[in-house]
Amino acid sequence: MTDGFIAVHCGAGHHKDKFHKQYNKLSKLACKAGTDVLKQGGSAIEAVKAAVLILENDPLTNAGYGSNLTTKGQVEGDAAIMDGKTLLYGGCGAVQKVKNPIELAYDICIKQREVLPMGLIPPSLLVGEGGFYHAKAAGLEIVKNKQLISHKALRQFKKYKKLLNTAELVENSPLDTVGAICVDGSGHVASACSSGGLLLKRPGRVGQAALYACGMWADSFSPRTETSVAVCTTGCGEHLMQTQLAKEIGIDLKSNSCPIQGLYNSMTNKFLKSRHLRNIKQKLGGALVLHLTTEGEGAVLWGHSTETMSVGYMKTTDVKPKALISQLPQEIQVGSSINVGGTHFILNR
Amino acid sequence: MTDGFIAVHCGAGHHKDKFHKQYNKLSKLACKAGTDVLKQGGSAIEAVKAAVLILENDPLTNAGYGSNLTTKGQVEGDAAIMDGKTLLYGGCGAVQKVKNPIELAYDICIKQREVLPMGLIPPSLLVGEGGFYHAKAAGLEIVKNKQLISHKALRQFKKYKKLLNTAELVENSPLDTVGAICVDGSGHVASACSSGGLLLKRPGRVGQAALYACGMWADSFSPRTETSVAVCTTGCGEHLMQTQLAKEIGIDLKSNSCPIQGLYNSMTNKFLKSRHLRNIKQKLGGALVLHLTTEGEGAVLWGHSTETMSVGYMKTTDVKPKALISQLPQEIQVGSSINVGGTHFILNR
Repeated sequence: MTDGFIAVHCGAGHHKDKFHKQYNKLSKLACKAGTDVLKQGGSAIEAVKAAVLILENDPLTNAGYGSNLTTKGQVEGDAAIMDGKTLLYGGCGAVQKVKNPIELAYDICIKQREVLPMGLIPPSLLVGEGGFYHAKAAGLEIVKNKQLISHKALRQFKKYKKLLNTAELVENSPLDTVGAICVDGSGHVASACSSGGLLLKRPGRVGQAALYACGMWADSFSPRTETSVAVCTTGCGEHLMQTQLAKEIGIDLKSNSCPIQGLYNSMTNKFLKSRHLRNIKQKLGGALVLHLTTEGEGAVLWGHSTETMSVGYMKTTDVKPKALISQLPQEIQVGSSINVGGTHFILNR
Repeated sequence: MTDGFIAVHCGAGHHKDKFHKQYNKLSKLACKAGTDVLKQGGSAIEAVKAAVLILENDPLTNAGYGSNLTTKGQVEGDAAIMDGKTLLYGGCGAVQKVKNPIELAYDICIKQREVLPMGLIPPSLLVGEGGFYHAKAAGLEIVKNKQLISHKALRQFKKYKKLLNTAELVENSPLDTVGAICVDGSGHVASACSSGGLLLKRPGRVGQAALYACGMWADSFSPRTETSVAVCTTGCGEHLMQTQLAKEIGIDLKSNSCPIQGLYNSMTNKFLKSRHLRNIKQKLGGALVLHLTTEGEGAVLWGHSTETMSVGYMKTTDVKPKALISQLPQEIQVGSSINVGGTHFILNR
């Protein structure tokens, strides 16, 4: 049993100054929840689930309770989780009435190990009503639609719904999807993410937070012989899908011994300069990354083209978690360059 | 204006001898529908839509009318389309009551070029009820659930539903997803696919046929300076998702001057030997591929690890389309090796 490490984010976007303290407090709470799981011998996938659950339950974030509302005024959640040890993924998209979409994604993920009768294959992605059925059958907490709607989300919905057919822009549209990445005592990594999607998204729209390779990636297939990586992304869902940014970063960083330079290059080449996004003016995205060498040298990194990104992290041996709001330098235009930050840690084995 | 070429498939799986003629006839019909569009100056994306529509409407295939039924006895369709010229994709998953899921995917794809008010982003993947709403609003044909259920699908559903909690295996479970790939007169490619999913799939389960990079890939970003490729895959949805097989093949073949060897290697290394599938005994998959050099030298290729794969193809200047059932050599165990076939063509410019 060795040390573990967790990092979380509350989205890349525009975090107003007056809320920075709240975001930092929440990130720390989530880190604590994750390391508590690790200290009790829990796995990385259990720890990221626990951390994202805290983030979903807070109305500050655009995930779970307090999510942005669809054009029909409802919360529809996307979430996904990936286990670097088994390389299995579970995701749910556009799911209503499930209090914690991350619990549903987790349940779908772990049930993929099951052998079903008749040679049937366990699903890895469940959407809409079918996702709801699975959650109910699995005994997850089901709530009424309105129980997921916060005052703030309803206020924003009403404000912008009226303006929908005008030329008005949604100002500083919250992109605060949440996510967590982790390495556990056995050296395995996991990644999880959850999102309510863009404000006034269309019903049934599924974004990167539900989708394999787009919102999350985790690979600790062989932690003794290969670098392990875990990635979760946040930002404009369609653009993260088209670039499959989480997987691309994961693959790039697996073969890169200088992860901070690697993350900058990966996000610049595979996102900002991606030919899939050549007609997009403002490319808004962020990524939180864990990079772990076979010698137990770790790095946690964040990169974003948005004004801000809210991040927290904690090692199991730390007394307190750390949290910060990473800021794009004022000279740089939003959506045009990547701001990268990070820190280094050692896992004692 | 130069020649165009289209190829279609009716799945990789087990096509019973007595139905071979029917599959070939259907493949030819679909090729004709596609080339008719091309001859009228239609684009590759319009041609693949027209071809897949024919395949969906035939009860022989597991797409559209006649799809496999879910555990709740309903048809839920997945479909997607990708335009190699714009690199845009549109997909729909677990959609009920939409007569032709491929028309919905097409509509979602082309509407991504639209600029929405308020800086909103057009969705690229719509699922469940939200997909249905979009189809209805777009004026696509809506039918009752039971109008999509064929006699054969209902009979199979009833037979296996009874056995669901027994150890019985679904024999020769039909994997006959359909797909089409095409190059049009301007040298651009497109790919489309549609599927009803596995028999007795869970409601809300989304498979590769709805998902970017998994079920289809098309890239003719720069047909004068780069090889263009279009790929569609068929087989076990979860495994095609985990390996993102369509995109992987597309990327591998883009840099490969010997496409038939390239396809064999790509399917062997990225599917059969994928570490993501290391615990899967039988890896069932197939791919249909278009490879086009900057000089207009074309190849259409198919590869499958299943017993059979049903394929058809036609050049706009051909009098008749061709169709065949590709067979895995009897000495080879199903799911353990890739059988590759193909043909060569020249596009006059």
